[in-house]
Amino acid sequence: MTRVRIDLFSSLDGYTAAPDPMADNPMGEDWGPLTAAYAATRTFRQKVFGDTSGAGTTGVDESYAAAFFTGVGAEIMGAAMFGLHANPDDPDWKGWWGDEPPFGCPVYVLTHSAPRPSIAMVNGTTFHFRSGAIEEVLAEATAAAGGLDVRVGGGVRTAQEFLRAGLVDDLHVGIAPIVLARGNRVWDDLRGLEHTHRVTTEVAESGTIHVTFTREEQR
Amino acid sequence: MTRVRIDLFSSLDGYTAAPDPMADNPMGEDWGPLTAAYAATRTFRQKVFGDTSGAGTTGVDESYAAAFFTGVGAEIMGAAMFGLHANPDDPDWKGWWGDEPPFGCPVYVLTHSAPRPSIAMVNGTTFHFRSGAIEEVLAEATAAAGGLDVRVGGGVRTAQEFLRAGLVDDLHVGIAPIVLARGNRVWDDLRGLEHTHRVTTEVAESGTIHVTFTREEQR
Repeated sequence: MTRVRIDLFSSLDGYTAAPDPMADNPMGEDWGPLTAAYAATRTFRQKVFGDTSGAGTTGVDESYAAAFFTGVGAEIMGAAMFGLHANPDDPDWKGWWGDEPPFGCPVYVLTHSAPRPSIAMVNGTTFHFRSGAIEEVLAEATAAAGGLDVRVGGGVRTAQEFLRAGLVDDLHVGIAPIVLARGNRVWDDLRGLEHTHRVTTEVAESGTIHVTFTREEQR
Repeated sequence: MTRVRIDLFSSLDGYTAAPDPMADNPMGEDWGPLTAAYAATRTFRQKVFGDTSGAGTTGVDESYAAAFFTGVGAEIMGAAMFGLHANPDDPDWKGWWGDEPPFGCPVYVLTHSAPRPSIAMVNGTTFHFRSGAIEEVLAEATAAAGGLDVRVGGGVRTAQEFLRAGLVDDLHVGIAPIVLARGNRVWDDLRGLEHTHRVTTEVAESGTIHVTFTREEQR
């Protein structure tokens, strides 16, 4: 059965980096410290950085990183995460993920802007632009996932929209042991999530705290 | 050497219960879930509830609970934590800690109200009321601690005042695996605390996440 998954990065004080597509460093200076332990894993080095040497950490962080890349058949993301706002008037703009986006599956981009044609990229990634209700988009993504999972990839506001609507089966938050005091708040308005989902907590060798919320019942 | 210590309870989303001294349940309904793992430890059952049976958990939570009660020679707290606002016009009001407060040392209550005489309680607890700068009160508490540590006991706003002033050597935050979405924010304005203090993270059998910030240099 398809499950709906979200992975988020947070600081101890509940912030994730606030991306700014217009800036020179669109993910912001806080993204590096937030994701440093993940970037050091063998899986991320291979999948994201193309490092085929096998180098990278192999502990608890790696187990979450490996799971991150396994079993996703479709992805949903907000318009900002695609980069739609960076070139709103260019119908040929393919987002800021480059010529080889790392998804390898259909990606549904939520947008309220005018309809845009889908964009087929390499390696199985196709961007679709949808303006319907999130439940409708999720139904389409679920059908496209062919029994694999649907990931709600972000940003954090899109993730919260799905969480608050009760649409998420598996939430994983990787909490870096740092205090940011600024950014986008990860946890807003999720009071009592531990009552609808089973919670686990675990600390990696890096000091990163991994929290998971798992809904036992299938949707 | 005396070190300045703070212990706080937090939810995953960075909230601690907001006490309301005027309410029937002055610590609020969230205090129980926040502190449940601590209340279950052998040390807390003995020290706070008077349970001399030896019952209670003996794992990671217990190790922090035992440390909590060790080596404190003086305590500093805000007026609200003493309960000063509950009976502001009664000079005989001894706070809401009852006839046998659990401190066993001098307690310095920060207040901007009119001077009040000190109150000697049983078991070595004496409440002193001070309206000076926190650095002055800390100097007096340090002298009174006789080489033991000074605890800044709370509430969270008082704790933050000391943290932001760079006066705290050891911070321990016990994070319960729950989402509150309301209360007093624990972490505000502490960006970069991991640069001045060494951070450790650890998960207890209860799922509680223990985070410590330790300043290596003596003040």
